[in-house]
Amino acid sequence: MTGYFTPDRSVEVVTGRTSATADPRTAEVVASLVEHLHAFVKDVELTQGEWQRAVDFLTATGRTCTDERQEFVLLSDVLGISMLVDAVAHPRPRGATESTVLGPFHVEGAPQRAMGDDICLDGLGESCLFEGRVLDLDGAPVAGACLDVWSDNAEGYYDVQQPDVQPRWNNRGRFITGADGRYCFRGIKPTAYPIPDDGPVGQLLAALGRSPYRPAHLHLIVTAPGFRPLVTHTFVDGDEYLGSDAVFGVKESLIATYTLTPQGPTTWRSTFDVVLAPDHPTDQPHQ
Amino acid sequence: MTGYFTPDRSVEVVTGRTSATADPRTAEVVASLVEHLHAFVKDVELTQGEWQRAVDFLTATGRTCTDERQEFVLLSDVLGISMLVDAVAHPRPRGATESTVLGPFHVEGAPQRAMGDDICLDGLGESCLFEGRVLDLDGAPVAGACLDVWSDNAEGYYDVQQPDVQPRWNNRGRFITGADGRYCFRGIKPTAYPIPDDGPVGQLLAALGRSPYRPAHLHLIVTAPGFRPLVTHTFVDGDEYLGSDAVFGVKESLIATYTLTPQGPTTWRSTFDVVLAPDHPTDQPHQ
Ligand SMILES: [Fe+2]
Ligand SMILES: [Fe+2]
Repeated sequence: MTGYFTPDRSVEVVTGRTSATADPRTAEVVASLVEHLHAFVKDVELTQGEWQRAVDFLTATGRTCTDERQEFVLLSDVLGISMLVDAVAHPRPRGATESTVLGPFHVEGAPQRAMGDDICLDGLGESCLFEGRVLDLDGAPVAGACLDVWSDNAEGYYDVQQPDVQPRWNNRGRFITGADGRYCFRGIKPTAYPIPDDGPVGQLLAALGRSPYRPAHLHLIVTAPGFRPLVTHTFVDGDEYLGSDAVFGVKESLIATYTLTPQGPTTWRSTFDVVLAPDHPTDQPHQ
Repeated sequence: MTGYFTPDRSVEVVTGRTSATADPRTAEVVASLVEHLHAFVKDVELTQGEWQRAVDFLTATGRTCTDERQEFVLLSDVLGISMLVDAVAHPRPRGATESTVLGPFHVEGAPQRAMGDDICLDGLGESCLFEGRVLDLDGAPVAGACLDVWSDNAEGYYDVQQPDVQPRWNNRGRFITGADGRYCFRGIKPTAYPIPDDGPVGQLLAALGRSPYRPAHLHLIVTAPGFRPLVTHTFVDGDEYLGSDAVFGVKESLIATYTLTPQGPTTWRSTFDVVLAPDHPTDQPHQ
């Protein structure tokens, strides 16, 4: 028997080429990828024309990537792969706040602000007071926690998408908790927005008849010494796109209440407590 | 029960978003791709860092693509996907010459030459006479068949890889059969060569401890009215890389004999008969 490629033995022939001296994890990941991609080609009996379209799609996706735009991340997002990697890689102990996708619009180094400050710099949108506590699994306040928050503006764009229109750091800021673990800042009630859909990923969504919209959300990265970093969102309760998030980021536990505050200093008030998991896995069962 | 994404229901949640009005084949192909990619992520428990490396790899692969170089095709080739698509898409009736990968170096519009002409224009390499017949499944000669042939030069490069060094159309030509179905031309005994390995695909091969070499081969596209186009190679018998072709293109039936011809007009003589399948599938079982 020769070792030549045949459809029946395609996986073992390809994987069998990997050297015994290759890094074992690399070998394992590539072997699994080959197995699943070959099964895909066989299952759908992919035609040469479809293969060519796939090559063209990947090439166009690569061409759409710039320093400001990562179309492969967007592709991973709309195929549910980003959420799956997050779920597989970040099982959290019961009771800890759940994670969700980072998204492409985080910017390192947002200005640190004082509790109560307003992060909305363009004066647009419905004002909202965000408040809550950062707690550990036992419900004790976490002091010195950093909340790095960002949201889109009233028109559905992040500042980095409109550098000529929005003030720098519009709707972004970092807040450090004191001894009571409390946080509180002003901003706007976020608005639903479409992911960038003028590229190959947008064409894919259109071909599948899928909406590019994400339900309104506030992004948070919460870090504190001794705790696992948390990348998550809070979603606006009642948003019409909660059930059709283009990137599948919604989790029931991340939907925050937004209460109208007719007498208050802001139009809305949103409360959400963040529960951090300790740095090292506990013995609690993973959810 | 909400329709929110969970690792357990990841495939049905993502696939469930496809609109009922989407093209059925597109929906089917994407659903299968999602199923297999999610299974891959779960099987290997892909980490966030590995996901990031995958995104970076795809981005670098996109960046390596130019009008002259298709790094995604190369990636498909080294993962055995190109050969698998060819096998799935092109089952041929028993007795017909088998197909193999096109490769990235075909150029449309090679000059048509007379039988017996020499396609080697740079004077390098061991001269070889290629001859044989183009036949139908019954063994009858096919007149008017076009053989579009190309190979690398003695140093392992195609003319398009060295536009400043090699004469245009070096080791390329088209030949049309007469009533006897015979073809015959001069060229060189092809040489083994590495696929372009200075990009992301080369890095992948290196990480897997795999050789970038392809065994020496002559490319052929054979077309004739009433017959299915055939994209194939003939390989040089005895080549040291036959068992380790970087793109898995070798099939036993495509290995051609090369005979030393000390008295002849060329150093080598290679004979190979091409058997074409009819345009429409026959009732014969597919192999
Ligand atoms: Fe966002
Ligand atoms: Fe080649």
